[in-house]
Amino acid sequence: MAYLNENYLKLPAGYLFPEVARRVRAFCDANPEAAKRLIRCGIGDVTEPLPRAAIEAMTRAVEELGHRETFHGYGPEQGYEFLRSSIAQCDYRDRKIDISADEIFVSDGSKCDCGHILDILGGQNKVAVPDPVYPVYVDTNVLAGHTGLALKDGGYEGIHYLPCTEKNNFVPEPPKERVDLVYLCFPNNPTGAVASRAQLTRWVNYAMEHDALLLFDAAYEAYISDPQVPHSIFEIPGAHDCAIEFRSFSKNSGFTGVRCGFTVMPKSVLARTSDGRRLPLHPLCQRRWSTKSNSVSSLVQRGAEALYSPDGREQIRSLVNHYMGNAKLLRDAASHAGLDAFGGINAPYIWVKTPGGITSWEMFDRMLRRLNVVITPGAGFGAQGEGYFRISAFNSRENAEEVARRLNTLPTS
Amino acid sequence: MAYLNENYLKLPAGYLFPEVARRVRAFCDANPEAAKRLIRCGIGDVTEPLPRAAIEAMTRAVEELGHRETFHGYGPEQGYEFLRSSIAQCDYRDRKIDISADEIFVSDGSKCDCGHILDILGGQNKVAVPDPVYPVYVDTNVLAGHTGLALKDGGYEGIHYLPCTEKNNFVPEPPKERVDLVYLCFPNNPTGAVASRAQLTRWVNYAMEHDALLLFDAAYEAYISDPQVPHSIFEIPGAHDCAIEFRSFSKNSGFTGVRCGFTVMPKSVLARTSDGRRLPLHPLCQRRWSTKSNSVSSLVQRGAEALYSPDGREQIRSLVNHYMGNAKLLRDAASHAGLDAFGGINAPYIWVKTPGGITSWEMFDRMLRRLNVVITPGAGFGAQGEGYFRISAFNSRENAEEVARRLNTLPTS
Repeated sequence: MAYLNENYLKLPAGYLFPEVARRVRAFCDANPEAAKRLIRCGIGDVTEPLPRAAIEAMTRAVEELGHRETFHGYGPEQGYEFLRSSIAQCDYRDRKIDISADEIFVSDGSKCDCGHILDILGGQNKVAVPDPVYPVYVDTNVLAGHTGLALKDGGYEGIHYLPCTEKNNFVPEPPKERVDLVYLCFPNNPTGAVASRAQLTRWVNYAMEHDALLLFDAAYEAYISDPQVPHSIFEIPGAHDCAIEFRSFSKNSGFTGVRCGFTVMPKSVLARTSDGRRLPLHPLCQRRWSTKSNSVSSLVQRGAEALYSPDGREQIRSLVNHYMGNAKLLRDAASHAGLDAFGGINAPYIWVKTPGGITSWEMFDRMLRRLNVVITPGAGFGAQGEGYFRISAFNSRENAEEVARRLNTLPTS
Repeated sequence: MAYLNENYLKLPAGYLFPEVARRVRAFCDANPEAAKRLIRCGIGDVTEPLPRAAIEAMTRAVEELGHRETFHGYGPEQGYEFLRSSIAQCDYRDRKIDISADEIFVSDGSKCDCGHILDILGGQNKVAVPDPVYPVYVDTNVLAGHTGLALKDGGYEGIHYLPCTEKNNFVPEPPKERVDLVYLCFPNNPTGAVASRAQLTRWVNYAMEHDALLLFDAAYEAYISDPQVPHSIFEIPGAHDCAIEFRSFSKNSGFTGVRCGFTVMPKSVLARTSDGRRLPLHPLCQRRWSTKSNSVSSLVQRGAEALYSPDGREQIRSLVNHYMGNAKLLRDAASHAGLDAFGGINAPYIWVKTPGGITSWEMFDRMLRRLNVVITPGAGFGAQGEGYFRISAFNSRENAEEVARRLNTLPTS
């Protein structure tokens, strides 16, 4: 009989967001009246329409497929040159970062990329992840068999956790010991924290000294408002030798349902074989894409390309401004309600301490029952997330204002 | 230093189709005049415009994303209910096959699905693949570490090959020994062969007897013209307990660039743990999709749904008829040219013996140089593919007719 991958059995039943959805459904079924005033600030899903530039480009791209003269089938596995060169130029070279089009691998999103990168890496790597953290980094390592069993606090044996607490402003310092792979995400999901140039430089120096590889998730880079904060790990000298970056069109351009992201894999990044050879990872990335992927729909790639046009960039800016306006409202409201609120300045998430020491799932239930507002309990992001919750700024202005009003009615004990 | 996945180093440099592309490019650069009359019958890529029903549905779906009232972000990870229930109803229940919508997992294509299925299976499985075979089945097993090193004949240590030869009409019988996973693809790529109900029944019986799992690739099922030939492995009694099916919109509807396919995972399929427990694979599939995927673009899912409308089905039928008209022309022309030709009746591929015992890459070069026609050398599909080549019927009628004419000028030695 065929064997199954037993690493799957290590994961507890509920992935965070399905569990949130389950509780919300149960509440709504039991409270149909309250359900009508429910506002969702839980899952980080966008609410505003796509930039017009993307709509127009995708409409044209669809129609092209309806005519023999303009029809095209399979595209290049790592993505069309037109999109890869727009990315390399606008996201990198225009910011004086040396990245070429053939170091870009276009995919159907960052969630997928964060999992797929493990395909080309060895199972013996010692992995470090921040805590709290986007659950996908941990879960994909569990499924790939890079960890031991689940621990009582929600963590896993064999993973090196990097606590992100109020004390370190939610930005971890490099550990004393050697690790091989480090996941970093800035602006951070869930805490909304950003890492300074000096902090990222310490990470790059650590990686160079210990021959570690940084997996840098920059899905929220468009939300950086502080001109001093780096947008890419490749702004840091040395990072081209020790970092891979993930980017997404989900959060800057509303592509959560359209699906498009990319991995930036510099040709200079090396990794080792067990007999000590040092080889570039780029050809493995190329191989993974050609064997296991056909990139993402050509329609979607045309839509993503249009985001780099002058109109597209202006439309992205106005989307980001909209959500960051919400973030300010929500962060201020949480503070006025007597809650300790973090993030929300360079990121669309506000990270809030639960009042009176209640647990984050208790806070989830309280917000759901009393305010009819869905948030995400911090414990879902890791042991250090206990005692916090995340408010997402992805909403209409009207809803953000209403949530701000309701927060002011929240008894703080 | 981070370790890389050394299994990648086992794969030889050229994946078949990139190598074909490289040789064609070199020929065209050296022969610009001949390049102008080049006709590609190599890679199995469609040439005809998308069904109008899909174009219209995707155009509407794009526009919906441009307005706040109709905008939607993340969809369900395993695909929208509207598409899964259309699939379950039209592809299965209408044919009296009991498959429910929640046994369907929508993805961005069969190539991806064939690789991803290994995520949920154990590394210790004994794997059997036909020879010749779609290279992705083998390569993804190599990358996942399920094989030993490459052998001289192009195969890999540790894989059980099932020879598909003229003798068995290119349909292998179950082996004498026990294997855990068996890849089957009917209608077959590359040979164009189909398996009869009796032959598939012997495979399902083998799987039940040996507790094996059949991975059934039905990407070309729309091309079956013989009413006696099963379209799905689930037409065979017992298959619901021992088979997973892959389907695609690439070849029936021209979605090679749009990207959409699905995995059918019956809830009754079990696999074992190393300590002998028998557990359903369906929850692992669900978990894989929620952790590592967001299904495929909502635009694409709307396009796929429209293919099940009366108009969509009629348009698919006419696409299939078009390509099968080409297949007949090409098969007949190959036969008239004195070549032994197989397939092309229930599949869009014609599998042809090379004349005079030349190798398949020699034949590739001869066809390229003398006829300016690109075919796929059989050796690229496995050791048993040596001495054969594949002609793809995916082309315009004009091109198919021209290739047929040129085949008649081919000296057979």
